[in-house]
Amino acid sequence: MIDELRALKSIKECFKNDSGSVALGIGDDSAAVSFSPGNLVLATTDSQVEGTHFFSKTLTPRVLGRKSVAVAVSDIAAMGGLPRYILVSAGFSGDLDENYLDQLINGFKDAESEFDVKVIGGNLTSSHNTFIDITVLGEVSKANIIKRTGASSEELIFVTGTLGDSFLGLKLLQENLQTDYGHKYLIDRHIYPKPRLSVGKSLGEARLATSMIDVSDGFLLDLSRISQEYGLGAEIILDNLPLSDEYLNYYSKFSEDLYELALSGGEDYELLFTSPSENLEKIMLLADETGIRITRLGSITSNPEIVLFDKKGMKKEITKQGYIHFTK
Amino acid sequence: MIDELRALKSIKECFKNDSGSVALGIGDDSAAVSFSPGNLVLATTDSQVEGTHFFSKTLTPRVLGRKSVAVAVSDIAAMGGLPRYILVSAGFSGDLDENYLDQLINGFKDAESEFDVKVIGGNLTSSHNTFIDITVLGEVSKANIIKRTGASSEELIFVTGTLGDSFLGLKLLQENLQTDYGHKYLIDRHIYPKPRLSVGKSLGEARLATSMIDVSDGFLLDLSRISQEYGLGAEIILDNLPLSDEYLNYYSKFSEDLYELALSGGEDYELLFTSPSENLEKIMLLADETGIRITRLGSITSNPEIVLFDKKGMKKEITKQGYIHFTK
Repeated sequence: MIDELRALKSIKECFKNDSGSVALGIGDDSAAVSFSPGNLVLATTDSQVEGTHFFSKTLTPRVLGRKSVAVAVSDIAAMGGLPRYILVSAGFSGDLDENYLDQLINGFKDAESEFDVKVIGGNLTSSHNTFIDITVLGEVSKANIIKRTGASSEELIFVTGTLGDSFLGLKLLQENLQTDYGHKYLIDRHIYPKPRLSVGKSLGEARLATSMIDVSDGFLLDLSRISQEYGLGAEIILDNLPLSDEYLNYYSKFSEDLYELALSGGEDYELLFTSPSENLEKIMLLADETGIRITRLGSITSNPEIVLFDKKGMKKEITKQGYIHFTK
Repeated sequence: MIDELRALKSIKECFKNDSGSVALGIGDDSAAVSFSPGNLVLATTDSQVEGTHFFSKTLTPRVLGRKSVAVAVSDIAAMGGLPRYILVSAGFSGDLDENYLDQLINGFKDAESEFDVKVIGGNLTSSHNTFIDITVLGEVSKANIIKRTGASSEELIFVTGTLGDSFLGLKLLQENLQTDYGHKYLIDRHIYPKPRLSVGKSLGEARLATSMIDVSDGFLLDLSRISQEYGLGAEIILDNLPLSDEYLNYYSKFSEDLYELALSGGEDYELLFTSPSENLEKIMLLADETGIRITRLGSITSNPEIVLFDKKGMKKEITKQGYIHFTK
C-alpha cells in the first residue's frame, strides 16, 4: 500500500536539487527553471499505460521508470535538441507496495544520469490502472532546430541503428521466450531503448538534416509523417533496411515477410531523417564519430506515395503501416 | 470509437498556432516555444483520473477539459506567475466516441481563452480508465516568485474566496442533488473552479506575499505545507473562515461541525498566503481592485503546531486534515 505523503517525501528527498539552473525543484506548487538565453524551449509529453504499453508482469518498475523517460527524451533528440528537465505524473492502484515505487524511482534516477536530465516535478495519484506520464523540457538554438517538415524531393532518407528489433523483442517477451542470447538482445532493444541523443544533437549543430522524426509508431507510418504529410513521397530500397543479425535469426517466428516487422513494428526510437545528397559523406563521418550506424534507405519524391522496391527492383505492396491506437 | 490518426488531425487543426512565441505547436515530435528573456520558466503537472477525480456520469467532457486545465494553472497562480503553454496527455478507452473527444477539445478551447494559454502539444493513448494529464508551462520574474517556503513567525495568514464550497458541491453531485440555486452554486464551485491568476500575479508583482500555496488538498493540509513543513505553526481563528451563504445553508447535510468541510474539503483552488502585518492595508486594497475577497485568518507561530480557536477563544481539536491519496 502506497502512502501518498510518505511517497512524496521520499521522492522530494530523492530528487532534491534546487541549484544551478533549477531555481526550484520538487516540493512547491510548480518547479522554476532557467534555460540558455536565446534558445527555444522544447516541450513534449509521452505516456506508458499498463495494459497498453506495458504489463507489470513483463517489465520491472526500475526498467519501466527508465524506459518511460527514454522514449520521451527521444522526441527531443528528434528535434536536434538537448533534454534538460523531467516532470513525472503517475497513477497507481493502491495495491502497489512501497518497494514498487522505490524501484520506479531508481529507474528515474538511472534516466537522470544516463540522459543528463533532472526530475523537477510531478504528480502522484491513485488510478485503476497504472500510468506514467513523462513531460520533458529541453532546449535547442533557433538555428539548429530540425522539424518534421523541411524535406525536398530527391533528398536522401537515412535511419540510425536497426529496425524491427523492438517489436520482435516485444513478441518474444509476450511469448515468454528468453532462452538464448538472441532473445535477450531483442528483448533488451524493446525494454531498454536508447534514444539517439548525440546523433540528433550533432545533426542539428552541423545542420545536416532537413527533416527528422523518431521511429516510434513504425517506420512506414513515421516516414509518411515527414513526407506524405507535406505532399511528398518516398522510394525505399528494402534491401537497404538495416536489420540486426538477431532480427534475421528470429523474424520468421512471427512473419513470413523478411521486411514486415522492420517496416511496421513500433518503438525502435531510431532517428529517421532527410538530407541533400551532398551531405552523404559528412553523415557517414558522423556515424563513425558517434559509433551509431546510419543507413541510407532511399529518396524523397515529389509523387506523394511511399513506394518500396525489392531486390529485383520490383514494387512491393504495403499491408500494415504501423501501430495506431484504438484501431487495432 | 476513437480513431487516433483522425483525432490527432482534428486536434492539430484545432490548436494550430505556429506564430509569435510558439515557434512550433502541435504536430511535431516536440513543441518549441519562447519565454520573456530573464524570466524563470515555471512547470507543473496535474492529473484528472476517472474514478479518482471525476466520474463521466457527473462531469461532461467539455467541463472536464476546462477543469483539468483550471486546476493545473492554479499551481502557476500560486507562484505569482503567468501560465503560457499547455501540454495535454490523455488516455481513453476505445469505447469513447468522437463526440466525447470533440467536447473535451471544446473544454480545452474554453480554457485557452479564459486563462490566456495555448495548447502546444500532447499525447493520446488508449487506457482502461480515462485520465487527463495537464502540464502547464508559465513564467515569472526571478524577483517576484512566491514559494511555499518564506513565511516567518507572527506574519498574517490570508486566503482568497471562500472555503469548503467545492467539497460540498462534490457531495451534492454524488447524491444527485441539483434541485435549487444553492445546490447549483456549490456544484459549480466544484466543477468550474476559478484559479486566482490575477490575485496571484498581483501579489507577486507587489511582493506582498512571503509564502503561498493553492488550496487543493484541503485547507489544513495545505496550511501545514507552508508552516509545519518549515518548522513553523499557525493559529487560525475559526470564526474568520470565509464561508459562503450556500455553504452555511447546506453544510449540515454532510457534517455536524460548521467548520469541518471548510477546513478539510479539497479542491477549493483558493490562494493561501502569508504576509507581514504592515501589508494588511495593501492586501485589502488588492482585494478591492481585483474584486476577489481576501480574508485574514490568523497568524504564523514559531510553535510548530496548527491550533484552531473557536468563537470563545477555546482550542478546537483537528480530526481530519485533508484529502490524501491511497490512505482513505
